[in-house]
Amino acid sequence: MPRRGHNLGHIENRMTQPLLRQLPIAITLGDPAGIGPEIIAKAFLQAPQALAGCFVAGDVALMRRAAALVCPAVPLPLARIAAPQDALAAPPRCVPVLQVVDGARRCVVPFGQISAEAGRMAGECARWAARAALRGEVAALVTAPLHKEALAAAGAPWDAFAGHTELLQAEAAAFLGQPVEQVPVRMMLASPQLRTVLESVHVPLRAAIDTLDAAHIVQTLQIAHAAVGGMLGRAPRVAVAGLNPHAGEGGRFGSEEREIIAPAVARARQLGIDVHGPIAPDTVFMRARHAPPDKPGEFDVVVAMYHDQGLIAVKYLGVEHGVNVTLGLPLVRTSPDHGTAFDLAGTGQASAASLLAAVAMARQLSAAAAVAA
Amino acid sequence: MPRRGHNLGHIENRMTQPLLRQLPIAITLGDPAGIGPEIIAKAFLQAPQALAGCFVAGDVALMRRAAALVCPAVPLPLARIAAPQDALAAPPRCVPVLQVVDGARRCVVPFGQISAEAGRMAGECARWAARAALRGEVAALVTAPLHKEALAAAGAPWDAFAGHTELLQAEAAAFLGQPVEQVPVRMMLASPQLRTVLESVHVPLRAAIDTLDAAHIVQTLQIAHAAVGGMLGRAPRVAVAGLNPHAGEGGRFGSEEREIIAPAVARARQLGIDVHGPIAPDTVFMRARHAPPDKPGEFDVVVAMYHDQGLIAVKYLGVEHGVNVTLGLPLVRTSPDHGTAFDLAGTGQASAASLLAAVAMARQLSAAAAVAA
Repeated sequence: MPRRGHNLGHIENRMTQPLLRQLPIAITLGDPAGIGPEIIAKAFLQAPQALAGCFVAGDVALMRRAAALVCPAVPLPLARIAAPQDALAAPPRCVPVLQVVDGARRCVVPFGQISAEAGRMAGECARWAARAALRGEVAALVTAPLHKEALAAAGAPWDAFAGHTELLQAEAAAFLGQPVEQVPVRMMLASPQLRTVLESVHVPLRAAIDTLDAAHIVQTLQIAHAAVGGMLGRAPRVAVAGLNPHAGEGGRFGSEEREIIAPAVARARQLGIDVHGPIAPDTVFMRARHAPPDKPGEFDVVVAMYHDQGLIAVKYLGVEHGVNVTLGLPLVRTSPDHGTAFDLAGTGQASAASLLAAVAMARQLSAAAAVAA
Repeated sequence: MPRRGHNLGHIENRMTQPLLRQLPIAITLGDPAGIGPEIIAKAFLQAPQALAGCFVAGDVALMRRAAALVCPAVPLPLARIAAPQDALAAPPRCVPVLQVVDGARRCVVPFGQISAEAGRMAGECARWAARAALRGEVAALVTAPLHKEALAAAGAPWDAFAGHTELLQAEAAAFLGQPVEQVPVRMMLASPQLRTVLESVHVPLRAAIDTLDAAHIVQTLQIAHAAVGGMLGRAPRVAVAGLNPHAGEGGRFGSEEREIIAPAVARARQLGIDVHGPIAPDTVFMRARHAPPDKPGEFDVVVAMYHDQGLIAVKYLGVEHGVNVTLGLPLVRTSPDHGTAFDLAGTGQASAASLLAAVAMARQLSAAAAVAA
């Protein structure tokens, strides 16, 4: 006759096994002068189940400071781990931290100030996590925000990168032995209601128009199709926004739709992508918005022609559930849809909602990637 | 001892008196090949109280066709009125129609097709209503959608106007005895959660950038300040969106914020307008969004630098509550935030929600104008 205790243990094993079989997820520290460390600590405090299997790629002392901020009465326990895999055995509400920045060089980082030291730490954490993901030691990386000016102030090699995306792209290219140009990336912003992939990001609006290119749009569509298809397990319904009011209204309000966007859409359809457009920018996001049961979205993802076209829509209902996903890399990377918030840093008041959404998205994407592999 | 019946009559008189003292509101037919007539009929059918004091400036036969469409079993009664003021005495669920298009020239207008005849009718109704408003015979006009190509097909004088706004602007200028350039207008889009005033409308995005001008922005701010202040009865909190990602991020992503928008904001502040910006386009609409009790908006109106910047946000939660308001004219004009929807015309399926919202907004604006006068 089987022993009850043995049976229960068996059930427990079954419940934890899928997690144990998976790789841990690395959450990078971000700029320690910003809200990164404290929103990480808050996430572990508020949603220990959601953070199971995650660890901080960062610095123990800085995470200890953050833990004290968000839980002054009873400090949140930290566990210094020796390797990523150790994170999978950490108890709930304990924050596993892997020391990846050089502690000997560490100095006190004041909150809310641009500093080369903080920029360097943010860069080192992201680089470490990228390499761990490329080596297959972590399932995904979730990057807490860095400050672009601090990264620039950190000097070489960090000042070569505008931000996380470029840093990760360079690491991926080095890993693949290819020039950076051969590793095209796109930014996707996702909320529970809308996904948008941006054709251009941090350039003047005029430059976004000047550089609009059919081949680049086709590449964006291929990347969006592959990534969203992987998440959904089916061919996604892709929409392409126009550039001009009413998508140019037959050429009356601009020619880019006819000359650049429509040919790209036609080419992508030839490649087997279920893509529609160009659609009037002021209605395509409304049409794609997915708010069941009353409002099923018509599209799974919208390719936006420039930064604000997509972001105005995805942020409109609040940044707290927005997740930034870098598409095109041979690794899974997500991040919260906000910055370092220097004005809030050190208060413990910043919300962990977007970071938690980023962790959930990283888990979903890495599970899809594991199935596909 | 007062008689009960008399007392009740007194109360009824008090309830209707404010309405009787007011002027009627003209709803123009719009392009009769589109959904205009049927959404007007549907509005009278579904919300008779909300339509009290309104009448159709149009054509009796075409409104009879529309009434039969939306209520085939028991035709909605129509009342041909002889003058706008007669609308105030019309019984509920009866549609007062003033014949303002030349019935003798009328021919059958097929649904869903561009026709010169339909374009001419839409133009005639709008012109009649504009003149009635300028003469002080109606409190406001609510314009059902016209089709721009039909208006152009109608020939002179209609083909001189890109749409309603230009037609109304020309009428106002003629009434005031000023050149059209001296009657600047701006388009405001308003939903229950957000108001946005557009710096440019139906031009290519590249032209919207090329023509960005500080003096024009100051004028937009003055118009927005006056109009929204009139609606609210207090100085409105006005936000100005940047043009570029992150509002240029200190010049890194474009110079228009520093060179054009910020000087305009500074000038408007000198003029006593409570204006803030330029603010990052992807967060300013989210910040202004007013969704009580959880989400009070930070601003009462956002001035958008181009068409889609504002419209993506205001339409995101659905066009059905969006209202288009023409600011700057010496009359009150609102319209639903959708077009002629030729694909739906004649089915009776189109929603009257946006038209009803436009009527409510016209009532609010004309009441504010009456108080200010």
